[in-house]
Amino acid sequence: MGAEERLKELGLTLPMAPKPVANYVPAVRVGELLFLSGVLPMRDGKLQAQGKLGRELTIEQGYAAAKLATLNALANMKQELGSLDRVTRVVRLVGHVASVEGFVQHPAVMNGASDLLVAVFGEAGRHARVALGAAELPMNAPVEIEMIVQVQPQA
Amino acid sequence: MGAEERLKELGLTLPMAPKPVANYVPAVRVGELLFLSGVLPMRDGKLQAQGKLGRELTIEQGYAAAKLATLNALANMKQELGSLDRVTRVVRLVGHVASVEGFVQHPAVMNGASDLLVAVFGEAGRHARVALGAAELPMNAPVEIEMIVQVQPQA
Amino acid sequence: MGAEERLKELGLTLPMAPKPVANYVPAVRVGELLFLSGVLPMRDGKLQAQGKLGRELTIEQGYAAAKLATLNALANMKQELGSLDRVTRVVRLVGHVASVEGFVQHPAVMNGASDLLVAVFGEAGRHARVALGAAELPMNAPVEIEMIVQVQPQA
Repeated sequence: MGAEERLKELGLTLPMAPKPVANYVPAVRVGELLFLSGVLPMRDGKLQAQGKLGRELTIEQGYAAAKLATLNALANMKQELGSLDRVTRVVRLVGHVASVEGFVQHPAVMNGASDLLVAVFGEAGRHARVALGAAELPMNAPVEIEMIVQVQPQA
Repeated sequence: MGAEERLKELGLTLPMAPKPVANYVPAVRVGELLFLSGVLPMRDGKLQAQGKLGRELTIEQGYAAAKLATLNALANMKQELGSLDRVTRVVRLVGHVASVEGFVQHPAVMNGASDLLVAVFGEAGRHARVALGAAELPMNAPVEIEMIVQVQPQA
Repeated sequence: MGAEERLKELGLTLPMAPKPVANYVPAVRVGELLFLSGVLPMRDGKLQAQGKLGRELTIEQGYAAAKLATLNALANMKQELGSLDRVTRVVRLVGHVASVEGFVQHPAVMNGASDLLVAVFGEAGRHARVALGAAELPMNAPVEIEMIVQVQPQA
């Protein structure tokens, strides 16, 4: 089963791919590697959560925000590649978690991203991961996700 | 028009390429990819701005600092490649913006880097971007920039 | 002399490769590039230091923590490749240093990682580097290290 089919089975719909509002682009490909811009937990052009872990958000809410941010990354991939089925491997995921002093459970939050990637891509969704705490993130987002994926060569 | 010519037209001069003062190097190339070390807003070996956004620096000052840090990255590229004209694409830009509690306009600061890259490289300057807030940066710098660019194969 | 022999000469033993406890993996290879997950200063499954630079840890202790985290990255490489001798170049090192307000000597801390890499890999250990301050890191770790290395093609 391909990623597109799995996504459907999971009952997930991709948000609109976020539009860069400055001099950058959602993704750049070099050979087999697709480098994706940072994404936030947006839907319909609106952040769905704001604030920091350890204060405004529980771990469960952070997990959901990481999942939604990752759906935005998938939307960017689909826009770039035409189909998620052209992703052959998720290579690296870096997750930045806005954290108040003393919040150190970033891995539990980032599982929202990692679990989704494995649900959608299966074994090919298993990635190298870096989980970090951030002082502040753009627009007061609770999480920001950046990814590199491997893709099929262009026809 | 190539990047070197555009740089001249813009009236910009590159700072001295920053010298690593430890066991690392300004850039490492693997195939078509050139990975660059993090750079700060330096000129003549001196930081031109210090402090955090939301306190010591305005957004305009942060924008200027991001631009200057990026000029340092260009200086590293030129030192490595001989000419900026050998850069075929700016792949990824990550910008770390030193932020006080509540400062969340990192994208506006990072536009100082993105706008310069497009001014110098044209369409090839459009990159995947990640804008982040940092708790602290080396030497109390307000911004730190890291980049990956695609380069022409070696002759 | 190869990296494995140098490691022995230095009297260093690798810690157990850290086991990912979620849906990710220690490393992903694409062509010549090996992308490694973030690593902390662990030994025998236990963090050997906790807290922030500028409060709980001195620079010397941070240097030691960066070195130990890097040994964990080496353990991951060895697990993935069979031997460190298959690493042909250390490409990029990003170091996140948990920092209290006002701590800005991240480069001095990260030298613990850089010095080890050059001691083990020689000239091939010289890397592009990014040193950053983090608000918080997983499990209250003082440093987190992420790396990309170039490896010999698979036989």
